[in-house]
Amino acid sequence: MVPHLVTALTGPINELEQRILESTPVIERWFRLEWMEHTPPFYTSVDVRNAGFKLAPVDTNLYPGAWNHLTPEMMPLAVQAAMAAIEKICPEAKNLLLVPENRTDSFYLANLAQLQRIFYQAGLNVRLGSLSNDIKAPTTFDLPGGESVTLEPLIRSKRRLGLKHFDPCTILLNNDLAAGAPGILEDLHEQYLLPPLHAGWGIRRKSNHFKAYEEVAKRFGKLLGMDPWLITPMFNQCGAVNFAEQSGLECLRSNTDALLARVRRKYKEYGINEKPFVVIKADNSHAALGQLTVRDAKELDDAWFQARAKATAGHAIGEVIIQEGVLTNERINAAVAEPVVYMMDRYVVGGFYRVHADRSTDESLSAPGASFVPLAFEQSAQLPQPGAKPGASVPNRFYMYGVIGRLAMLSAAYELEATDPEAETYD
Amino acid sequence: MVPHLVTALTGPINELEQRILESTPVIERWFRLEWMEHTPPFYTSVDVRNAGFKLAPVDTNLYPGAWNHLTPEMMPLAVQAAMAAIEKICPEAKNLLLVPENRTDSFYLANLAQLQRIFYQAGLNVRLGSLSNDIKAPTTFDLPGGESVTLEPLIRSKRRLGLKHFDPCTILLNNDLAAGAPGILEDLHEQYLLPPLHAGWGIRRKSNHFKAYEEVAKRFGKLLGMDPWLITPMFNQCGAVNFAEQSGLECLRSNTDALLARVRRKYKEYGINEKPFVVIKADNSHAALGQLTVRDAKELDDAWFQARAKATAGHAIGEVIIQEGVLTNERINAAVAEPVVYMMDRYVVGGFYRVHADRSTDESLSAPGASFVPLAFEQSAQLPQPGAKPGASVPNRFYMYGVIGRLAMLSAAYELEATDPEAETYD
Repeated sequence: MVPHLVTALTGPINELEQRILESTPVIERWFRLEWMEHTPPFYTSVDVRNAGFKLAPVDTNLYPGAWNHLTPEMMPLAVQAAMAAIEKICPEAKNLLLVPENRTDSFYLANLAQLQRIFYQAGLNVRLGSLSNDIKAPTTFDLPGGESVTLEPLIRSKRRLGLKHFDPCTILLNNDLAAGAPGILEDLHEQYLLPPLHAGWGIRRKSNHFKAYEEVAKRFGKLLGMDPWLITPMFNQCGAVNFAEQSGLECLRSNTDALLARVRRKYKEYGINEKPFVVIKADNSHAALGQLTVRDAKELDDAWFQARAKATAGHAIGEVIIQEGVLTNERINAAVAEPVVYMMDRYVVGGFYRVHADRSTDESLSAPGASFVPLAFEQSAQLPQPGAKPGASVPNRFYMYGVIGRLAMLSAAYELEATDPEAETYD
Repeated sequence: MVPHLVTALTGPINELEQRILESTPVIERWFRLEWMEHTPPFYTSVDVRNAGFKLAPVDTNLYPGAWNHLTPEMMPLAVQAAMAAIEKICPEAKNLLLVPENRTDSFYLANLAQLQRIFYQAGLNVRLGSLSNDIKAPTTFDLPGGESVTLEPLIRSKRRLGLKHFDPCTILLNNDLAAGAPGILEDLHEQYLLPPLHAGWGIRRKSNHFKAYEEVAKRFGKLLGMDPWLITPMFNQCGAVNFAEQSGLECLRSNTDALLARVRRKYKEYGINEKPFVVIKADNSHAALGQLTVRDAKELDDAWFQARAKATAGHAIGEVIIQEGVLTNERINAAVAEPVVYMMDRYVVGGFYRVHADRSTDESLSAPGASFVPLAFEQSAQLPQPGAKPGASVPNRFYMYGVIGRLAMLSAAYELEATDPEAETYD
């Protein structure tokens, strides 16, 4: 089944698919050369939106959860990629310490069980060390499927982090450190801490990521001879927005207006009969702001700002990113669907559709909701089907998503290099 | 479906399976460390035989064909492994030259089409350069499925090998060079030629391989605390056998006798009520000798030698290996089945059963025959199923085969190092 695109304008995407397919060896070689110079994040998931006339990543997660939604058929790919990743980082490793979010819902625990399984099969003893103060002794949680997950308290010595009788070579975070890095994770110079602390949302900024993506997409567009806008979400940014104190509002209005105008010009250039919109988000992914869809800077009136002030409860949001909204015009049955691509090391290992029957095409689908249904990709993103009619082949669609996912992953590699606090700088 | 083992004595194999499963992280780490020191062959297939009481590789192929028999589900693993392999050898490569056997039957051509597809998707332009004098211009063969394969004449310059308008970074042989390496492949110092020429059957010896395997299995047995015989085919060898000239016959008799005695002692130790047998083969895989099953040195009488003299038509067979026969007691329906494990770089990417209804448990199944039916492994060899009853789970059986396959591949790495004519020696 090829997910249906509800738009008259699928021409540009089908053309892009065709171009990407024809260029497979060129694209794969280009990535190969990039990875010689840049280190991929340990694991990555990328939310992609396909508007029919453009296809772009809208969020790049360096602490992906929901691994449990990959199909069993994709697990061997994940295990093989994990083997490749470990081999490069710490081949002599026996032990891997996984540091999860402070969540114990069964959905998240199933994700941890899956990660534990992947790394066990790749050849590591995996144990889970919780940052939560509630875990004072090893605590086992049973999962509906009969599996169980044990969280253990972390033990920090002067130079190392571990568990009781468990000294890992590598510490893998599955926690996005939104509240900043806790002291227990700092100054660990003897162990590999992955992703690095500056990948956490306490330090990371969406604007840095999408700036890097713009550069990567520009070079990729040149390689394939295509307009990089077809795969890039444009953005503006504003610093120091505080709704309670009414600061930064003018910046928000003028940047929204300017970005909408840029999108309008692009729509005109491509003959797209859609109403442009932007999405306003906290640059550091701060949850209090949410993801706000705006179609006209006039919407940003006093009532809007007051509602935001209330919603953010006086939080200083700080920097804000105003991102070109990309419609998701993919439908599975009647529900809006957004592909999510999963990668381990440099390899695409699978993905799924985030499906949300109650949401519209210009809203974020990653909000929680009863009708959230992940739908695993049926096929691998590594096996395009040359010769199939553009837009008609699942493998080709997924291969294209895998390429876009990897462009976002590569951008994250650039971003992490540019923001590395320990990087040497040459003036 | 777990292939059925027709033997009362499955205890040792089920115990081995259990041991291997419990030791997954230890085993994977052990392989990881081995691959730090040793380079895996580019690709490998290993014929494994499962007697129920022992499990051993009987043939390690460094130019595997029959890639077309892997399931579509396994192709992503092969592509990912090919990406990893290329990245290490020649990351900047655009072009790969594949040099096939001089066969144009549709079975073999389908194998070439599959290899071409794998490397294309891994990011290489792949073309086929034939060693055959019959290919004087690009020649396209259509395959039953609608695909086609084009063979082109090789063009040799002073320092490089290629095709017209095609200069490859890497040359991949899918030709076992049984007749020795042709001059056109010699002295190529600017390009990667894989596998190296000394892996061809003109130079390679089965006895070197199984000597290396004995060492590897001994260390692996120590790691897991088990008798290495459970995974090792014992062997003896004889040099300079020539049936027409009656030379080397005494050596053959006495070594057969001695090996049968060693097997008998092992069978007694394990309480195995089977009649031991040995298989006599040319050490360089010379086809004229075939694979001869012998249960008693008395069988090697004058009539036997005369029949061999006739069959080998006066060929000097040279060295001969006398290998412990390993029964294949696996059955798929009523047919005898032998698993074949496929590897690319260090990764198990799939496998299939060679099924032969007309052959018995102590005969080679790789002989051509109308009833040869490859049956693809249903599942990946990377995902064991902890907790399943020993001997009852397909994933666990296949994981075990994947471990044995990799032990044979590792032995081939040792073998190629030991036999490398260009290796530096330190006295």
